[in-house]
Amino acid sequence: MSKHNFSAGPSILRNEVIKSASDAIIELNNSGLSLIEISHRSKDFVEIMNKARLLALELLNLENKGYKALFLQGGASLQFLMTAYNLLDKKAGYLNTGSWSTKAIKEAKLFGKIIEVASSKDKNFNYVPKDYIVDPQLDYLHITTNNTIFGTQIKKLPETNVPLVADMSSDILSRNIDFSKFDLIYAGAQKNIGPAGTTLVVVKEDILGKVNRNIPSMLDYRIHIEKDSMFNTPPVFAIYTSMLTLEWIKNSGGINSIEANNSKKADMIYNEIDSNELFEGFAAVEDRSSMNATFNLKNASHKEIFDKMCKDADISGVNGHRSVGGYRASIYNALDISSVNILIDIMKELKNKV
Amino acid sequence: MSKHNFSAGPSILRNEVIKSASDAIIELNNSGLSLIEISHRSKDFVEIMNKARLLALELLNLENKGYKALFLQGGASLQFLMTAYNLLDKKAGYLNTGSWSTKAIKEAKLFGKIIEVASSKDKNFNYVPKDYIVDPQLDYLHITTNNTIFGTQIKKLPETNVPLVADMSSDILSRNIDFSKFDLIYAGAQKNIGPAGTTLVVVKEDILGKVNRNIPSMLDYRIHIEKDSMFNTPPVFAIYTSMLTLEWIKNSGGINSIEANNSKKADMIYNEIDSNELFEGFAAVEDRSSMNATFNLKNASHKEIFDKMCKDADISGVNGHRSVGGYRASIYNALDISSVNILIDIMKELKNKV
Repeated sequence: MSKHNFSAGPSILRNEVIKSASDAIIELNNSGLSLIEISHRSKDFVEIMNKARLLALELLNLENKGYKALFLQGGASLQFLMTAYNLLDKKAGYLNTGSWSTKAIKEAKLFGKIIEVASSKDKNFNYVPKDYIVDPQLDYLHITTNNTIFGTQIKKLPETNVPLVADMSSDILSRNIDFSKFDLIYAGAQKNIGPAGTTLVVVKEDILGKVNRNIPSMLDYRIHIEKDSMFNTPPVFAIYTSMLTLEWIKNSGGINSIEANNSKKADMIYNEIDSNELFEGFAAVEDRSSMNATFNLKNASHKEIFDKMCKDADISGVNGHRSVGGYRASIYNALDISSVNILIDIMKELKNKV
Repeated sequence: MSKHNFSAGPSILRNEVIKSASDAIIELNNSGLSLIEISHRSKDFVEIMNKARLLALELLNLENKGYKALFLQGGASLQFLMTAYNLLDKKAGYLNTGSWSTKAIKEAKLFGKIIEVASSKDKNFNYVPKDYIVDPQLDYLHITTNNTIFGTQIKKLPETNVPLVADMSSDILSRNIDFSKFDLIYAGAQKNIGPAGTTLVVVKEDILGKVNRNIPSMLDYRIHIEKDSMFNTPPVFAIYTSMLTLEWIKNSGGINSIEANNSKKADMIYNEIDSNELFEGFAAVEDRSSMNATFNLKNASHKEIFDKMCKDADISGVNGHRSVGGYRASIYNALDISSVNILIDIMKELKNKV
């Protein structure tokens, strides 16, 4: 791999993870079989699944606290619907901080009354609303901890007594917060966990079984829990590769070490955005994401030359999302500081070229 | 790969597919990036997705006939629910030929009246019911073309004017039938298409939009069609590897060649089952599956020695499902005749050892 991969997702994985995943496709554990042609009921895969689930709970410091970890399919998009199917009885609150929150709200509305506790839509989601009131009668409050598209991140968790549900797709395992404040966490794997194709769901069992509707089996968290995340054939490859990434995080010293590294990377890039007169940040400074740095060229005519410089430096995936424009550097867990340095060098160098 | 892999699913893939999949994980198309770290919106992946969808329609001879091919997540288990969500208005008919049909019926019951047009449960699903009547008022008739667990297969398609929906998970692309008789076909990839983690859905567009309910976005075929199977992040690796398998089928001469090979393998194994006095077949002879051959030892005390002989011959995955017992040799498209020969040799040899 020679590219500096700033893609927003699917996104960079560690080289050692990629190598091991590639090897396992040829042969898993000297079994004479490829990872992708073994039964999901085989001893080898049952061990992989159990290890991945345990590692997720361990890294989030949620072992023995009433939580179960599942690796499901369908991404966060299916979770928008599953959370409401399983938890929404009368009314739920949603904090609207971007495109994904908006989609979550849309799906949940099919199942009950949705109260948008606050929204930052008025400023194209460039900040995170604070000081909103959470009705204590809500079935749950749903938040999106990091907004991939807009580059904002919730720094202070809401204080509430209602169950807290979070879409952590783009910042799970990137920073140490008190995960026991959440009752349900979900995250598509394709940013900080693994390849596209599986979704980590961590759910506190005692919030389930309280709604009065028939839940189809595939959408019922209780059934997936009862079957140890093997109710149906799981996405074997995506789970194996996720397990490898979780092992890498553990062996790197856990979330605290990862967070220290992420902070360093984020500081570096935001310092450059703020000190370089050719650029400006998109997100409100206090809400800036440590995962996705969104920024623009002040002078649009510099775009062509900057894009070419990026390309020549083997920088990949820095184009901003169409709803924001400009640039977005996704600096997920797996990205090395060296790649951030290269990007910053290019940003500095631009001054000499325009 | 040294094993003879008779696993029922996830199951054998071609060696050349496995090799190419492993290589693409290291680097895709000289892009400097791994297949599993590129954006699903990248030119490379959009091409892969489009190619896989086109190949599916082409191999099924369903091009330009009003069908769309999708690669979704959630396996056949999510399709049990999606078919009913999208198509069941008042009442639907289900042919109950095994465990998977039974599960499909259970999920569909949440959405309307289900009429079991016939069932072979009376004989532990060892045959396929025929001569049943299909109410012309049904919203659709659902069949399971091949029953992986019991080793039966529908040889003659039902004659009906109501839309025909089929779970073809375990025999898709294995034999040439008139696929245009179906209005919706779904198949988990992990038997004849690719690794676990994606589901091929082929749907005739004009049957959609006729039910009177709100369908959540992720469960709505129309939304997946509108977004070219990219409504949410697709399972990149599973789709790429499926594309490789579809290419292999095309390059092997298409379904007709594959079918000829499958018939040969099935004839070989059933001939041995019938001619070897130590074994007996499970499924009714006229309904025998060309994909999963189920059989038993007449004398259970021979099990230990036969199992050891299989193991010594590097035969893997021939244990029967717990609801049938005995043995099941899954002889999917990718399995070479040479592996079937090895199994038959062992079955013959058993006579000299007991």
